[in-house]
Amino acid sequence: MRGHRSTASRVDTEGETDSDSETMRCISCKEYYGRCDAGTCKECYEEASDTEEELKREIEDLKAKVAFLRFWSPLDHHITHRSSAGPCFTDVVLIASSDDGFIGTGPSVPVPAHKAVLASRSPVFKAMLENEMEESRSGTIKISDVSYDALRSFVNYMYTAEACLDEQMACDLLVLAEKYQVKHLKAYCEKFLVSKLNWDNSVVSYAFAHQHNAKHMLETALSLITDNMDKLTKREEYTELVEKDPRLVVEIYEAYLSKQVNTAAHKDSSSMKP
Amino acid sequence: MRGHRSTASRVDTEGETDSDSETMRCISCKEYYGRCDAGTCKECYEEASDTEEELKREIEDLKAKVAFLRFWSPLDHHITHRSSAGPCFTDVVLIASSDDGFIGTGPSVPVPAHKAVLASRSPVFKAMLENEMEESRSGTIKISDVSYDALRSFVNYMYTAEACLDEQMACDLLVLAEKYQVKHLKAYCEKFLVSKLNWDNSVVSYAFAHQHNAKHMLETALSLITDNMDKLTKREEYTELVEKDPRLVVEIYEAYLSKQVNTAAHKDSSSMKP
Repeated sequence: MRGHRSTASRVDTEGETDSDSETMRCISCKEYYGRCDAGTCKECYEEASDTEEELKREIEDLKAKVAFLRFWSPLDHHITHRSSAGPCFTDVVLIASSDDGFIGTGPSVPVPAHKAVLASRSPVFKAMLENEMEESRSGTIKISDVSYDALRSFVNYMYTAEACLDEQMACDLLVLAEKYQVKHLKAYCEKFLVSKLNWDNSVVSYAFAHQHNAKHMLETALSLITDNMDKLTKREEYTELVEKDPRLVVEIYEAYLSKQVNTAAHKDSSSMKP
Repeated sequence: MRGHRSTASRVDTEGETDSDSETMRCISCKEYYGRCDAGTCKECYEEASDTEEELKREIEDLKAKVAFLRFWSPLDHHITHRSSAGPCFTDVVLIASSDDGFIGTGPSVPVPAHKAVLASRSPVFKAMLENEMEESRSGTIKISDVSYDALRSFVNYMYTAEACLDEQMACDLLVLAEKYQVKHLKAYCEKFLVSKLNWDNSVVSYAFAHQHNAKHMLETALSLITDNMDKLTKREEYTELVEKDPRLVVEIYEAYLSKQVNTAAHKDSSSMKP
């Protein structure tokens, strides 16, 4: 506990009754404090400590449960035995592809997986695999417009609920998560992207969030933009957005207007008070 | 927060300076208290509240992760479509059997599962399935000396990390968990059984824990027994244990002796002090 109150001039003398009668010692940080800085009584302190211990135990239990439920990903195995089918009992492969064939310079490396895992994490894969569609029969699922690295991270997440993110990877995975309805991954990527939002990337992020239905990211980006409306029209991204998708620009202005009206209403109701 | 201090005779008058000068109001329970009941300063209270909020958020995140990583068990499907292979992509079945054929009146119902799930949860299944043993080739794993219900719960636990326990089921699952080295399940059952320990079941539990290498349960049962040595020899289970496994009885006496020596040593060192 950081020492937030100086004790240099104090001596711990028990039973003091004169000018120090209003001084107490905090059970937690062991510093002295006066009445005006009093927090809780002893009983509440003890209850709070018990609660904290309980919560920490619950966290330990949940972490053990996560460790039990997560899989070794077939990709871990894949790296060392790329050529063999391996003893992972995989029954399907995913291949990154673009509309005009394979992405990149050569054919993509197939990413092995289990139908059961894909189907349990994504209702889209579930429908695809259970309904004996082409993908289920051939054991090959083509994933369009995605890099091999993003596809690999996507499959890995299905097994581990973990991914190593930078902004590009978070965007790529959010797109896949939205397409295949993997809610947990989408929330994970969106949380990361919201933490990276700033004025510089706000317009691009706003358009991206709109396109991929990322509500929380959309609201945060919109709030950033409407807080800086005076600078907005000078931005290159703004001009591009007007060109490409003017309806999104209209929504920015509507949000700005609505904010102004609310602020004005709030001021009015404040000034009405006696 | 429970009201643990009477406020009936108190009135909340701010700025009181006379005989109430040593009375403060707890920020948490809102009750009044005197100096001797003081707990923490305000700053520590606020820090503790922030910590609690953080821990709760972490718990929410972990719960969502568990929900994502757990599977629908193939058994859920199994109930409604018992006759069909179903669209669960299962590739192995487990069958409860005893040494002299099937347990019960008729052949056991096979419990479907995925090799990948079994192998990722249990190193024993992993070795069995990866090494192209009989079980892997036939797609059938016989589990000996187990009821259908216990086997079903065992397989279900591999998918969900959850089981509905009573004392019998906890014992059955602990035995399976030990045999197939499913550590998480073993700890789960052991925790449950330790919570049910009492003097009446202590001897049987002690022998059970010994047989199945359940260390925590063993220590707790042993401690219960050595606390009641005067009553031990009158018990039927004691006579049975002497007959069946006298070495376990010797270990009880050794633990009792060691406890006595420790207690005596502790008393000595206490009485040596000035």
